[in-house]
Amino acid sequence: MQLTILGCNAATPRKNAQTTAQLLEINGQMVLIDCGEGTQIQLRKLGIKFARIQHIFISHLHGDHFYGLIGLISTFRLLGRTADLHVYGPKGIKEVITLQLKLAKSWTDYNLFFHELEEEVATLILDHEKFTVETLPLDHRVYTNGYLFREKVGKRKINSAAVANYGVDVADMENLKQGKDIQLPNGDWVENQLLTFDPAPPKSYAFCSDTAYKPDLAELVQGVSCLYHEATFLDTHQDLAVKTKHSTAEEAAQIAAKAEVGQLILGHFSSRYPDLNAFIEQAQRHFQNVHLAEDGKGFVIQ
Amino acid sequence: MQLTILGCNAATPRKNAQTTAQLLEINGQMVLIDCGEGTQIQLRKLGIKFARIQHIFISHLHGDHFYGLIGLISTFRLLGRTADLHVYGPKGIKEVITLQLKLAKSWTDYNLFFHELEEEVATLILDHEKFTVETLPLDHRVYTNGYLFREKVGKRKINSAAVANYGVDVADMENLKQGKDIQLPNGDWVENQLLTFDPAPPKSYAFCSDTAYKPDLAELVQGVSCLYHEATFLDTHQDLAVKTKHSTAEEAAQIAAKAEVGQLILGHFSSRYPDLNAFIEQAQRHFQNVHLAEDGKGFVIQ
Repeated sequence: MQLTILGCNAATPRKNAQTTAQLLEINGQMVLIDCGEGTQIQLRKLGIKFARIQHIFISHLHGDHFYGLIGLISTFRLLGRTADLHVYGPKGIKEVITLQLKLAKSWTDYNLFFHELEEEVATLILDHEKFTVETLPLDHRVYTNGYLFREKVGKRKINSAAVANYGVDVADMENLKQGKDIQLPNGDWVENQLLTFDPAPPKSYAFCSDTAYKPDLAELVQGVSCLYHEATFLDTHQDLAVKTKHSTAEEAAQIAAKAEVGQLILGHFSSRYPDLNAFIEQAQRHFQNVHLAEDGKGFVIQ
Repeated sequence: MQLTILGCNAATPRKNAQTTAQLLEINGQMVLIDCGEGTQIQLRKLGIKFARIQHIFISHLHGDHFYGLIGLISTFRLLGRTADLHVYGPKGIKEVITLQLKLAKSWTDYNLFFHELEEEVATLILDHEKFTVETLPLDHRVYTNGYLFREKVGKRKINSAAVANYGVDVADMENLKQGKDIQLPNGDWVENQLLTFDPAPPKSYAFCSDTAYKPDLAELVQGVSCLYHEATFLDTHQDLAVKTKHSTAEEAAQIAAKAEVGQLILGHFSSRYPDLNAFIEQAQRHFQNVHLAEDGKGFVIQ
């Protein structure tokens, strides 16, 4: 599982700081999370083959999280896309995108599916062959969801030495990967676990932005491999965090600690802080394995 | 009069090529013409104090000419703007901007005025103290206007030597600039033209994008100081130009020649051409003083 930060600046883009967008590669599938203005340009700059994106998840309809969506959808058409595209986001997202296409007398040559969300509780919204996605209801000024991505358990791994030792037929390899016991040419049965190793444990990623401090979020993201949690402010601006329904670095770290996640990534920094090291320092009062999001930075989630 | 090209790529932004947006400084006023995705980021990169923009003119509602508008409008609020903002563009522009503000439960703290255009003939749409703006109806796949900007005639210029020679009172300088004759302390009257020079002739700028070849456009832009005319294609793709209602470099130059403009700027190049020099060569079959638009490039219009 690989995460690429395309942008993580709060509110407005800056000269060298894009607004929120992330690309997640999960079990070979590529999904986009949020799509601030200029996301398609960031994807080009990073040399990402963005035609591979089949699912887009928008957290909420503030501009710094979705003003780049209509441009990406239009560009997909101009590049000759034919594959289906699924867009998940708050109710209203379909109207605003289709209105813009209508005004431009434009359309898409591919199937564009909108999945509008209104649920107020965590909900499984996608059960894909390779992964699942659940919503994480957040507490912000407008209806907002985080998203929890879980890999599905992969196939069992062949124990080559054991397979050779027992003389298993090559034709049975797929049966082995699927966990089946095997009958040898001599008629004996061998238990699968003697011939295979357990698959890698599935990894998980939780994206939580934007949100006020929401302690009960910890239950929903319990034990995830990686948590991205917004940290718009430092503790000196706790009052602003409350007023604007954002979080501080410490609050993000408290969620991470309570949920016992593998690692924490902070992002969505206010432009008022020239030095971001204080975000690490303040977060580490509660949780050690913390990293800062940064435009173009990649994280391997394990 | 100073023109800055913020972007001039057709259809979609590229790694180093933004879609259409231009900044025109006219008699001390700053206006924005079109606003492709990422325009606010370009303005920041070029270090332009964009709070000075009071008028925005959108040619048509294709994404590469206006997807950056909602982001700029939102950012103006976040930066604490209080000055009025006037947006001119095709009918529908108000609905799409206000829908996006509504979905974000957002607003503007400044007055935002929409001037929706539906006229099919050239129309004076702004008579400002410093300049005028007329529409230039274009021929594209959706309702599209170019815009013609004309400086108003400035004040007369003081002839310092003559003023000293006649002994004109300093208190009369503003009367002189306004063209009035002056009475000297001895009671004699002096004609204004003996004491002043003519003001600089007013300059004009015509922006024409996007449009199919439209020969009668030449009458509307007759004698302008500078014409920006789209040139999406070279003559090898004349068929595509007709089909998509765009122009070739030669067609743009034919308008410039017929209208006897001061200079021609070509832009809105299709991404299929790695070398843009052929645009100059083909345009110069009809008109000599031709230049290529380029992101970040400035033109002094005289």
